[in-house]
Amino acid sequence: VTASQRLGLILASESLTFLMEAHSGVSAHIVEEAGFEAIWASGLTIATSLGVRDCNEASWTQVLEVVESMADVTSIPILVDGDSGYGNFNNVRRLVRKLCERGVAGVCLEDKLFPKANSFLGERQPLVDVAEFCGKIRAARDSQTDEEFCVVARVEALVSGLGLGEALRRAHAYREAGASAILIHSKRRSPDEVLAFGREWAGRCPLIVVPTTYPSVTREQLEQAGVSAVIWANHTLRAAIAAMRRVCREIHRRRSTADLESNLASVGDVLSMFDHDELRDAEARYLAPTPPSRAPAKVESAAAHAGLARARAPHA
Amino acid sequence: VTASQRLGLILASESLTFLMEAHSGVSAHIVEEAGFEAIWASGLTIATSLGVRDCNEASWTQVLEVVESMADVTSIPILVDGDSGYGNFNNVRRLVRKLCERGVAGVCLEDKLFPKANSFLGERQPLVDVAEFCGKIRAARDSQTDEEFCVVARVEALVSGLGLGEALRRAHAYREAGASAILIHSKRRSPDEVLAFGREWAGRCPLIVVPTTYPSVTREQLEQAGVSAVIWANHTLRAAIAAMRRVCREIHRRRSTADLESNLASVGDVLSMFDHDELRDAEARYLAPTPPSRAPAKVESAAAHAGLARARAPHA
Amino acid sequence: VTASQRLGLILASESLTFLMEAHSGVSAHIVEEAGFEAIWASGLTIATSLGVRDCNEASWTQVLEVVESMADVTSIPILVDGDSGYGNFNNVRRLVRKLCERGVAGVCLEDKLFPKANSFLGERQPLVDVAEFCGKIRAARDSQTDEEFCVVARVEALVSGLGLGEALRRAHAYREAGASAILIHSKRRSPDEVLAFGREWAGRCPLIVVPTTYPSVTREQLEQAGVSAVIWANHTLRAAIAAMRRVCREIHRRRSTADLESNLASVGDVLSMFDHDELRDAEARYLAPTPPSRAPAKVESAAAHAGLARARAPHA
Amino acid sequence: VTASQRLGLILASESLTFLMEAHSGVSAHIVEEAGFEAIWASGLTIATSLGVRDCNEASWTQVLEVVESMADVTSIPILVDGDSGYGNFNNVRRLVRKLCERGVAGVCLEDKLFPKANSFLGERQPLVDVAEFCGKIRAARDSQTDEEFCVVARVEALVSGLGLGEALRRAHAYREAGASAILIHSKRRSPDEVLAFGREWAGRCPLIVVPTTYPSVTREQLEQAGVSAVIWANHTLRAAIAAMRRVCREIHRRRSTADLESNLASVGDVLSMFDHDELRDAEARYLAPTPPSRAPAKVESAAAHAGLARARAPHA
Repeated sequence: VTASQRLGLILASESLTFLMEAHSGVSAHIVEEAGFEAIWASGLTIATSLGVRDCNEASWTQVLEVVESMADVTSIPILVDGDSGYGNFNNVRRLVRKLCERGVAGVCLEDKLFPKANSFLGERQPLVDVAEFCGKIRAARDSQTDEEFCVVARVEALVSGLGLGEALRRAHAYREAGASAILIHSKRRSPDEVLAFGREWAGRCPLIVVPTTYPSVTREQLEQAGVSAVIWANHTLRAAIAAMRRVCREIHRRRSTADLESNLASVGDVLSMFDHDELRDAEARYLAPTPPSRAPAKVESAAAHAGLARARAPHA
Repeated sequence: VTASQRLGLILASESLTFLMEAHSGVSAHIVEEAGFEAIWASGLTIATSLGVRDCNEASWTQVLEVVESMADVTSIPILVDGDSGYGNFNNVRRLVRKLCERGVAGVCLEDKLFPKANSFLGERQPLVDVAEFCGKIRAARDSQTDEEFCVVARVEALVSGLGLGEALRRAHAYREAGASAILIHSKRRSPDEVLAFGREWAGRCPLIVVPTTYPSVTREQLEQAGVSAVIWANHTLRAAIAAMRRVCREIHRRRSTADLESNLASVGDVLSMFDHDELRDAEARYLAPTPPSRAPAKVESAAAHAGLARARAPHA
Repeated sequence: VTASQRLGLILASESLTFLMEAHSGVSAHIVEEAGFEAIWASGLTIATSLGVRDCNEASWTQVLEVVESMADVTSIPILVDGDSGYGNFNNVRRLVRKLCERGVAGVCLEDKLFPKANSFLGERQPLVDVAEFCGKIRAARDSQTDEEFCVVARVEALVSGLGLGEALRRAHAYREAGASAILIHSKRRSPDEVLAFGREWAGRCPLIVVPTTYPSVTREQLEQAGVSAVIWANHTLRAAIAAMRRVCREIHRRRSTADLESNLASVGDVLSMFDHDELRDAEARYLAPTPPSRAPAKVESAAAHAGLARARAPHA
Repeated sequence: VTASQRLGLILASESLTFLMEAHSGVSAHIVEEAGFEAIWASGLTIATSLGVRDCNEASWTQVLEVVESMADVTSIPILVDGDSGYGNFNNVRRLVRKLCERGVAGVCLEDKLFPKANSFLGERQPLVDVAEFCGKIRAARDSQTDEEFCVVARVEALVSGLGLGEALRRAHAYREAGASAILIHSKRRSPDEVLAFGREWAGRCPLIVVPTTYPSVTREQLEQAGVSAVIWANHTLRAAIAAMRRVCREIHRRRSTADLESNLASVGDVLSMFDHDELRDAEARYLAPTPPSRAPAKVESAAAHAGLARARAPHA
């Protein structure tokens, strides 16, 4: 099965699945290694890792390069946070084609404007017109070159304070336009509005939630509300930031790393993560020893290039 | 003073300075925030962060893009690990010109072949010919467009087991070729060979060490040996990896983040790191209210964002 | 004088100046070589060269990379077609900062939406709100790190059929917001509306025109209308396309290049364009011949790496 | 059939095939449009187009991006000039994997050192050791993810003046290592040495030639010598350079484009090349008219673009 098929199965399955955030090759590797079934390539954390803000300051091709490095080192499916699609339906088409080429399993599009603002900033952020967003979903669908590629529609109506009715109205429209799943977002401290949405939604298509602000929601609550998948949307980077801050401050204060090694992955761990050992086997395989008789012919670079320096370009 | 001037002053000063590793925009920001005077943009950790190995699998322009994102969010000088220069003297020239354009303070070149192998891998890695490496240093010098740009020559003779004499012979040659400073590398568990080098070197030009394998070396030992600067070469990423692994495993096991929030930076911390608040002020400044006659048409941008401008980030 | 100062002087001068389009390193080199005083980095032709359409299918960083390759090989100022600014005022800020870093002399922003459509496509394309566009100009001004950087405001009111009054109203607002110059665009077959605009504008700030559809306009007409600069906006690429088509068809038909060489630049011309000869001098300078006594130490790569293959990573 | 299968068939077929050089999206499109069966993505012309020299000044990922833009707009197979593989066997592996992902049909590797120098520069350029180069070919083979991907081995022995015997010795070794085809290069004014090689080679595997310096060679001569394919290695760019120079000089001299339009592709031609018309259909499809109740808010997008959709491109 391909990555996109697996993501489709995960979303369709009865049991609750957890997607963990990653924002780089190394963090994606760690998420897979920890046992997660899928990766959330978060717009917020990729932006932060790049040193920019979560309002489309990074270009879509810069994000694509990060996502490619994540796909290259993992085998579990990656769902990419496509923000509001980096423009209109046509920008969505280009994004989807490139994500399919990079082996990504799916994209999540949110019903906000471009450039987007992070959902935790401010209140009542404007949403895009329903028809225009449905056009983006259809455009994504029509341009995917991987048949099983998933297009998740993220509903921001609750975040923007427009209420359950508007959220449901939008979710229905997005599903009809072809969305593989609905991500219902909320920034309340309580899961109530999300759970209410889930009950009303009644499994019309898979439902995804992001309990960043309501982490104490229980698995039972989510399952009873018909939720298919949970995204831990930024926790890997938040763990890294906390640790980097702590260790940097401590090393700066002590002017020594001597007693801090236990807080650190070893250099050997770092080197084994992307299999430096394989290089040795490969060198044995591909760098065959030169037969003795050839040694004199091994013109070395400096001298040979010095010879080149004396010659003339025939066409110049 | 420019970043490169500051790096020059740091290297020339009597007191010991510590450079901390970073590998991304966010980690560079954290290093500066912790109080360090300069950043080491490590080849190993940038490669690992990108999900590739430390043998020039990432192209030099991919590394350049990471370095640019680091320079964009910091004001302290960045010394870039230029590996063996990504090819010959001509590749060094291109690298140096681009680093100067990106506002980087200096580059460190090591006397190994291209593609390089990580110094902790294997024994007796071959070194480049002295004359060829001196040519690279001179090429770097002749092509720097920032007069104060630093070119650090990294001597791998001890790592390759060639002994103190060869290390000193090379260091002398590199200094004569124009190196701003010498980085003497070692992978012994004891600092002895590095300290011996320092005593013999006797301050002919600034000396840098990388105590990855001998972290218990003391400040006094280093100062007595005439060392100018210490590079903590990979500790920021190693802290991040350890934390990401721990948190990912724990969240995967518990299927909840409920009791782990204390190990994580808050979302508000993440958002304030690259000053999402500035956006609100900027929106007030640049998204002027639409004159009344046009108001009905202004649904999406100015008015709506003005609403956003009055709100507060809930986590900040 | 810097490139941006020169562009400022060109725009401010009494005499008419001509900017020629380029879309790549090689075409920019040719424009300078032909004697032009400045380069127009066209959105349409850069997109076409990349194989995409002129509706912001290429990301702004992809365009930035093309522009960097143009700036690297030229010394005359480059005015970059910034389309509608790749988003809102904040995207404009990032664009302007990066263009300043790349040594570009100025940017031209047009008062259309994002993603833009090529001006020759369709009629009555919607324009952006005046206040919002003025905010973009002010944002550009406030974020330029090169004091002399030019921000040209392109008025699309005539192209969108909104008439001379609206065009003038917008031009006044843009100048007050800080625009260095006004580019008044038209797609009529006659220069009349542009000349009328020029007379009404009366030199309030430098005026630029793009006579793609009215090439028979005379220098005298333009000077009398107070025009400062003319952009030949796409002619270099159009020459290249016509020639590539003709030569490709001819070679395909004949299955030979034998009699077509006179239509082609020679290989020597190609090699001398970016000074391959300099390499030989540089090799003589930087690849000093190895002293004889060192020859045995010149461990060659394959054998040495084979040695590496037998060793073990100590930290693994 | 996939692009790589088609390239394999072209190389294996009895009849002589011609590959035409391209260096960008637009030039690749033109090569296909002219009727050629395959494209040569030349290292020299891609470098020149980027404004750098043909000695690996552009990074391999910069070249990859150009190649991707070519693959995106064409359906005929692309054979990429991989120079000497951008480093050692491991760099070759990464290159091949990425080329397969981008839908490229094959790569050509040459038996020179890294960084390479253009073959027309200087005499007696050093070649890489046979065993090391065979390792690269095997590494390419083992890492291709597209089974039909072609790996062409380019023999530089004749160019380096080492004679027919050495050229044949190398060709045999490369074929045994797994090369799909041999490219025998020569920079003589006469085809004699290439034809002699062909006769000796006797069809052991497909043979490719590059008659840049001997354009008067006839089809019959090539067929009799057993040549499978001919690469016109730089003619598209050479046509473009000649035309851009001529037109730029002429426009600069005349300060007018008035009488030069016949030498140029029309703007309509430029816009139709990458199907700007498709955008109008797509807008009609994806920017559905807003329901009446929401119409007032829909100023900018759907309604306005619907107007655009009814219009015609004036130049098309």
